[in-house]
Amino acid sequence: MKKTLLLIFYCLFYLCSMSQQNEVFVAKKIVEEVMNNSGAYENLRFLCKKIGPRLSGSIGASKAVTATAKMLKAAGADTVFLQPCMVPRWERGAKEKGYIKVAGQPNYHLNLCALGNSVGSGSKGVLGNVIEVKSMQELEQVKDIVKGKIVFFNIPMNPSYIRTFRAYGEAGIGRRLGPSAAAKYGAIGVMVRSLASNVDEFPHTGATQYNDSFPKIPAVAISTRDAEWLSNQLKKKISLTAFFSTHCKMLADVPSFNVVGEIRGSDLPQEIITVGGHLDSWDLAEGAQDDGAGCVQSIEVLRSIKALGIQPRRTIRAVMFMNEENGGRGGKAYLQWAKDKNEQHIFALESDAGGFTPRGISMDMKEAQREQLKKWQPLFFEYGVYDFFAGGSGSDIAPLKQLGTALAGFSPDSQRYFDLHHAPNDVFEAVSKRELDLGAANMALLIWLVSEYGL
Amino acid sequence: MKKTLLLIFYCLFYLCSMSQQNEVFVAKKIVEEVMNNSGAYENLRFLCKKIGPRLSGSIGASKAVTATAKMLKAAGADTVFLQPCMVPRWERGAKEKGYIKVAGQPNYHLNLCALGNSVGSGSKGVLGNVIEVKSMQELEQVKDIVKGKIVFFNIPMNPSYIRTFRAYGEAGIGRRLGPSAAAKYGAIGVMVRSLASNVDEFPHTGATQYNDSFPKIPAVAISTRDAEWLSNQLKKKISLTAFFSTHCKMLADVPSFNVVGEIRGSDLPQEIITVGGHLDSWDLAEGAQDDGAGCVQSIEVLRSIKALGIQPRRTIRAVMFMNEENGGRGGKAYLQWAKDKNEQHIFALESDAGGFTPRGISMDMKEAQREQLKKWQPLFFEYGVYDFFAGGSGSDIAPLKQLGTALAGFSPDSQRYFDLHHAPNDVFEAVSKRELDLGAANMALLIWLVSEYGL
Repeated sequence: MKKTLLLIFYCLFYLCSMSQQNEVFVAKKIVEEVMNNSGAYENLRFLCKKIGPRLSGSIGASKAVTATAKMLKAAGADTVFLQPCMVPRWERGAKEKGYIKVAGQPNYHLNLCALGNSVGSGSKGVLGNVIEVKSMQELEQVKDIVKGKIVFFNIPMNPSYIRTFRAYGEAGIGRRLGPSAAAKYGAIGVMVRSLASNVDEFPHTGATQYNDSFPKIPAVAISTRDAEWLSNQLKKKISLTAFFSTHCKMLADVPSFNVVGEIRGSDLPQEIITVGGHLDSWDLAEGAQDDGAGCVQSIEVLRSIKALGIQPRRTIRAVMFMNEENGGRGGKAYLQWAKDKNEQHIFALESDAGGFTPRGISMDMKEAQREQLKKWQPLFFEYGVYDFFAGGSGSDIAPLKQLGTALAGFSPDSQRYFDLHHAPNDVFEAVSKRELDLGAANMALLIWLVSEYGL
Repeated sequence: MKKTLLLIFYCLFYLCSMSQQNEVFVAKKIVEEVMNNSGAYENLRFLCKKIGPRLSGSIGASKAVTATAKMLKAAGADTVFLQPCMVPRWERGAKEKGYIKVAGQPNYHLNLCALGNSVGSGSKGVLGNVIEVKSMQELEQVKDIVKGKIVFFNIPMNPSYIRTFRAYGEAGIGRRLGPSAAAKYGAIGVMVRSLASNVDEFPHTGATQYNDSFPKIPAVAISTRDAEWLSNQLKKKISLTAFFSTHCKMLADVPSFNVVGEIRGSDLPQEIITVGGHLDSWDLAEGAQDDGAGCVQSIEVLRSIKALGIQPRRTIRAVMFMNEENGGRGGKAYLQWAKDKNEQHIFALESDAGGFTPRGISMDMKEAQREQLKKWQPLFFEYGVYDFFAGGSGSDIAPLKQLGTALAGFSPDSQRYFDLHHAPNDVFEAVSKRELDLGAANMALLIWLVSEYGL
């Protein structure tokens, strides 16, 4: 009996170690395939340089749908299809202008841009005294003197937060909620300090959310350099007048699409695994890091698995979501599609934090599933991913939570992201080929593991 | 008795956990100080933009000595001093030229540069048929037909190595040993594929080492793009003739210096801890990542510790080593100084892998010391450093091994390094302020821990 048990134990141990060896072997193959033959960088070059900005409803977005469908086919997807969704169409219109009047000197020119989804001022613009606040609390303290003024939300990103998304989340309250909060007290316009971790001349756009209870007032972001300058001027207790004009407007919704490429699972095709990024970008940028990177990485996941001749057990879908930036309609449509077709979504991974060197996987799933993922952690270590932590996933896949899908966010290094996020310097040249590919390799490994072993 | 023992246990436990809390607290303070108030980026801007290239023996190198001495004083060093050392003085001379003759077409212009320490061809240049080899072994196979030809070492860096220094080490054999290996068989010149991980137009210089047993023949690096083009042409089995001219020469040694800034230890001042980078750079580059970054990070270690009012128990020295690139004389002089003064060097850390986002510490020390360092690993985790591994340190501090000093190399992410290493695109703009500072913060933390607890 004892001998039999020992034999069984050894057999199990052998099978187990064989399986581990297999995982190590496949991991190496996947990484080598991506690092040697990835198409991600050239696909990104096309998206950025041949198409350019891809705001929802724009011609660029439409071209990007066609282009990525083609890329998915070239990558070897068994099927490629489009999921229709209506998207908001916000247009910036003519270039914004703005300045600060400086007594006895020429006006100080402001580098600014309208906030996404904001209303335009028209040519007459907004002219008023500037009042600076450094927090929403400070706005409350000065609410009695806000009327008729331009509120300047000067909330810097905290440089000591190493996870820069935390700093973005905290400082972002001004951009997201500032315009309506200021309008509540009679402000005529809002200027926010760009949500940037560096000090330079680029204004960073991004969506604002009006509260329908208050007047919708024009809102712009000014560059961090201008914000520093303005704040220094205001420290001198001089009354300063600002002018800015914006020509943006929200038009009627238009039809658009998510782009989906699929490798059908051999064994459990009904179990769907999603890997994706968002295809739309802000209109001022090439949307290289945000989020062309996530799209081309997702395509590369499919390509590398196909190129290696791997037949995944479960169905793998690479999805280019539309309208993450100013509506999230693609994510909602993806959920609706899944509901309508009664699909079974077991896992989804989003890459929407840039194509920087990989570090971790943020897990939004049951504890047992997190533990399972963590067991795979050693496979990723030598490829730069070591940090599997409980956290959010991505805003396009978040709706799948309704279906009980295990969600994950690809979490690359975030030190450089907010130097260029939503700004004109988010261009192809800001992406490192090796960093982009190494991210794609780790994503492919994770997707392969889930396709093989489930969750 | 039992009660007394328990009491002692609880006291020890309390003290122990207090100490851990203290370490966590100080770690946070150090990181906050660096991320909020670092002077590293502005110091780097000065080195790159006001001084520029700093090859040993050049005016730039001399200016950099004066400038960093000043920076160290401004950072709050108790004493700043210079350590004299004689350095080689290699000069590139007039701009190199080179091309490939293409039948019936204009010559194909080559982006090339002389290898560091190489001899010049003079204006008459080197003209000959090109023979391509992809390894040193392949050179041996064709040795009988090398005579009178230009040998083209086309050894790419392996893209699938995630630790790019490994790829650099392997592929670098052509640059280091190729010229003499080819001269042995009668070659008249050598062209090496630039040691770069990307494909672009920049030639990457770097030192070559002649073997005195063979003729010293001119040697250049050509850009990776040109190497790809040339290799493709040669695949067509066409005989190709190349021309290149270089005007470099090695002059007599000249005096130079290591720059040292010191905070004297309060408790054990005789125990010296070194943190450093190298001040010299190649002549074609601003030397931002290689290794202005390591210098300004080392200065920042001193500044942040001083700014926090920490009185280190042991002596901390920030050292700007001279002549890492083409002689290593600064490192040797540092050792000699230590011997002459009978100094006790307990630990040295070098940052010479770029100012990229931090990942690890490479440890060249006794196992017990490695274990001690690894115990501190959790303190670093949230600041991005998680990988403490046995490996090399840095070529400037390596001589200290003779004294039994525990050595370490700061190991940041290496994906982007060889896009710009030794090339004209190693400029200030290639450095991210946050990445640079986060590196400095982790270095400061490690130096503080060793200064507090020894090794």
